[in-house]
Amino acid sequence: MLLAALELVGIAAFAASGALAAVRARLDVFGVTVLALTTALGGGIIRDVLLGVHPVTALVTWPWLAVAGVTGLVVFLFHPTVARLRRSVLLLDALGLGLFVTAGTTTALDLGAPPYAACLVGMTTGIGGGALRDVLLREIPLVLRREIYAVAALAGAVVVAAGDAAGLPAALVALVGSAIVVGVRLVALWRRWDAPVPREGGTPKLDG
Amino acid sequence: MLLAALELVGIAAFAASGALAAVRARLDVFGVTVLALTTALGGGIIRDVLLGVHPVTALVTWPWLAVAGVTGLVVFLFHPTVARLRRSVLLLDALGLGLFVTAGTTTALDLGAPPYAACLVGMTTGIGGGALRDVLLREIPLVLRREIYAVAALAGAVVVAAGDAAGLPAALVALVGSAIVVGVRLVALWRRWDAPVPREGGTPKLDG
Amino acid sequence: MLLAALELVGIAAFAASGALAAVRARLDVFGVTVLALTTALGGGIIRDVLLGVHPVTALVTWPWLAVAGVTGLVVFLFHPTVARLRRSVLLLDALGLGLFVTAGTTTALDLGAPPYAACLVGMTTGIGGGALRDVLLREIPLVLRREIYAVAALAGAVVVAAGDAAGLPAALVALVGSAIVVGVRLVALWRRWDAPVPREGGTPKLDG
Repeated sequence: MLLAALELVGIAAFAASGALAAVRARLDVFGVTVLALTTALGGGIIRDVLLGVHPVTALVTWPWLAVAGVTGLVVFLFHPTVARLRRSVLLLDALGLGLFVTAGTTTALDLGAPPYAACLVGMTTGIGGGALRDVLLREIPLVLRREIYAVAALAGAVVVAAGDAAGLPAALVALVGSAIVVGVRLVALWRRWDAPVPREGGTPKLDG
Repeated sequence: MLLAALELVGIAAFAASGALAAVRARLDVFGVTVLALTTALGGGIIRDVLLGVHPVTALVTWPWLAVAGVTGLVVFLFHPTVARLRRSVLLLDALGLGLFVTAGTTTALDLGAPPYAACLVGMTTGIGGGALRDVLLREIPLVLRREIYAVAALAGAVVVAAGDAAGLPAALVALVGSAIVVGVRLVALWRRWDAPVPREGGTPKLDG
Repeated sequence: MLLAALELVGIAAFAASGALAAVRARLDVFGVTVLALTTALGGGIIRDVLLGVHPVTALVTWPWLAVAGVTGLVVFLFHPTVARLRRSVLLLDALGLGLFVTAGTTTALDLGAPPYAACLVGMTTGIGGGALRDVLLREIPLVLRREIYAVAALAGAVVVAAGDAAGLPAALVALVGSAIVVGVRLVALWRRWDAPVPREGGTPKLDG
């Protein structure tokens, strides 16, 4: 019950992130709503497609669709206010990331995926929606370029898979996994951590 | 029989739209053909993946593949002529959109999806191919930026789902749904309707 | 056994191609690794999703994941050296393409797909990873713009499908199919063949 409520909070935060990016790209009201839905639900849709869950959960869970769609409309109408809430949205986004990663990892394990595959699926569940958002807006996915976003997601997924292998209670594992994602993410934002970039050097076009 | 013929007309129109965009981007003959196939069949492929239809219908229906591929080659060879037929192509494209949306919605309902999910799947069937075309050509999908294209698709999907819930005959529902898509689309083109864009205002980068 | 070893060589070559492109785009270590995984495994993932193979093979085959991931890290650390090996990487890439195309076509035929669908699936298996790489890096997929890359893939797929229809031994068919892909690809690189591009001419925007 609490988990379901938190999940909706995470979906709203992801939807707000997608809708704000769409507003910045000057999309119309429909485009903003689609970006909100895609960012909020895209990771879970990719997860279900990879795992063969049919029909895709996000499409048949109307509260998720309603929360994401309404969030998109609210951002469209009141985006200057929402943009001023930047810190709150980033905090909720970290919470959403934690919940999505643990839910994705758990779902994969429940369907019999080996632990390393469950970690990849869990991480993809968390970062897939944002990557889709950036591809649709013609940007290189932010998750590939900056910040410890994906590392936080992977850390949470590994904790969930390890806890599951150790036979710990599922609720405890999900709680700790989510907390780790949120913690790494917030510390990274606070300290402006980035993952290392390549050394400079000659890198001629390979495929030309 | 008539429906199958109309479907091929819609596929050809979508394929022409993809091939013309590829010609403008200076792709080679293979790229033009792939864009024709992707634009014409992409929406249906996404639909089947979301609904778990295997093998994907478009890949095992050779008349669709043949019509889309041949259309791509024809556009590659005679694109100045095809580009002059702009109005006809837009008309056929509207017809294709109507048929794809109603077919997508009906398929989803037949497979047991709830009505709101069927509407989303139907809309995605109609607009997915064009969105894939734009992503492959490194453009923000047109459907997210301008015109009432997606609204027309959604309106048709809602009519099909409502008619189905009301127990009306499937053929009638499909006919009315398609007509509404075509009607909204043509009026939008004629009147140059666009969906509203966001108000100007401060929208600082959220994720930076 | 030999085939499995060759497959790992092809995966490493594809991973190196993705990682080098990511290094050029100045991604961080995580982005380089993700691009390596996506380029190496993306084509097979698309194939499994289209054919309804669950769970997706690439996610549950840890040697593939390990080879692609480690290759990404190696390229991240030593990319100036790897870039100097341009010819070797292109040669291995051609080998990978041949193996992926024949494996994809054979898998589709084994699952009952008709020959023309198996050819499309096989070609997509070969070129899908590179297309994903380019979309993530915000480039028009190279395979759509230049070189005989896709034609080589299609030729190999057709040979495999024809050989299968003729009842020839699977190992022989796979060997000949792969050799044809590698041969066409290398000759194209050597002679700088490109597929024809459209004639110049008036191509006004269709969708505007």
